[in-house]
Amino acid sequence: MSRRSVRTERRLFLADGPKAVEGALEVPDRVMEVFATVAAAEQHAGLLAGLPDGRVTLVESRALDLLSDSVTPAGLVAVVEHLDVPLAGALAAPLVAICADVRDPGNAGTIIRTADAAGAGGVVLAGDSVDAYNPKTVRASVGSLFHVPVAVERDPALAVRAAQEAGLTVLAAEGGGEVDLYDADELLAAPTAWLFGNEAWGLPAGLAELADHRVRIPIHGRAESLNLATAAAVCLYASARVQRG
Amino acid sequence: MSRRSVRTERRLFLADGPKAVEGALEVPDRVMEVFATVAAAEQHAGLLAGLPDGRVTLVESRALDLLSDSVTPAGLVAVVEHLDVPLAGALAAPLVAICADVRDPGNAGTIIRTADAAGAGGVVLAGDSVDAYNPKTVRASVGSLFHVPVAVERDPALAVRAAQEAGLTVLAAEGGGEVDLYDADELLAAPTAWLFGNEAWGLPAGLAELADHRVRIPIHGRAESLNLATAAAVCLYASARVQRG
Repeated sequence: MSRRSVRTERRLFLADGPKAVEGALEVPDRVMEVFATVAAAEQHAGLLAGLPDGRVTLVESRALDLLSDSVTPAGLVAVVEHLDVPLAGALAAPLVAICADVRDPGNAGTIIRTADAAGAGGVVLAGDSVDAYNPKTVRASVGSLFHVPVAVERDPALAVRAAQEAGLTVLAAEGGGEVDLYDADELLAAPTAWLFGNEAWGLPAGLAELADHRVRIPIHGRAESLNLATAAAVCLYASARVQRG
Repeated sequence: MSRRSVRTERRLFLADGPKAVEGALEVPDRVMEVFATVAAAEQHAGLLAGLPDGRVTLVESRALDLLSDSVTPAGLVAVVEHLDVPLAGALAAPLVAICADVRDPGNAGTIIRTADAAGAGGVVLAGDSVDAYNPKTVRASVGSLFHVPVAVERDPALAVRAAQEAGLTVLAAEGGGEVDLYDADELLAAPTAWLFGNEAWGLPAGLAELADHRVRIPIHGRAESLNLATAAAVCLYASARVQRG
């Protein structure tokens, strides 16, 4: 069994590098241990000052290289407990995002970061989505994984129904949607769960049909579509503008 | 001299794979030659049908591997003339994007794709920006590199002044900007050049000062900032909505 598999079984993951460790230290109760080289511990002394004694372990950089999945020239890694919340915990806000089958870890992290910026109160990684604790997801979220409640739900239809039961209007972002985003201000004023599909094939028809409305971002030029993370940004900020602007 | 350097000197680049070749064939005059394996030429016969005789060369996959910078299981590569236009050619539209020092090729390609989708009529890669013909830029643009006039200008200040002389209001996207994007509809109605900075350090102060206004995207949650490509999407679509919505 690989080290990563062992961690996954114990519901632990690595926050790798000073930026990620800084994010993790915003939820200090979940940080089991920080491993640092002597040089990194000195360089980032301020960052580590808030940790209780015994939670920082000084190691040689060779040992740190073994612990980490990647090369870590920063010499600083936190072992953190999984943060995901039950589904209801990611749906208890007037704006949330549900990702169905998001596969690229960079996209997943960027959507979590964008949801945070837009003031969304939760993200659901549904269906066959990438692991929220993939190192690239953690990195692309730039700390927002530690700010925004994230839930994992294998059944995307169940996530959509749970959002509706929680009083959210589910808007599927879909190129062929019947509602133009520019005409959607009235819809966007309601508590909203945006539903985003896969990078390559979008939303399965059956799932899009479960949404309350299907909303299209107008394409004015000759591009066929937008990239998933940029489409999510346009939708989430359209909501933020109406709900908070 | 590497093969890539030779191509750059001759102002040629590779469109690698069926999606990129399809994009390139929208500007058939610029396609010097298409190299294909026998299998790929059969599979993509429809795509290649429009090319004059003699412009498709069948090669063994081993030869194609040598031509390409990357592994090309698709067996299809077009050699295309550089497409960039003089600066004025990328500023002759009511909505354009100027990127100063965009370094990540994926971001550059995504911004070109987003500009296309938002109906922008040009993109300037200014300053120390990534090569527009980097294979990752070409791939991330998903064909939009062949739709949108792209100019390359080493001096970003010159690009800003040229935009102003062309009658465009230059709006710098900046976290600390004095204008809230939600309050900018009146500004956005004017012909606009958005100015975006580097992924890590944003816009140099001196350059942001040259813009007519500095506009901030509101951050509602605890994220420090947005990723460059998602910020560009929010800004360009804010303009599209006002100009065309």
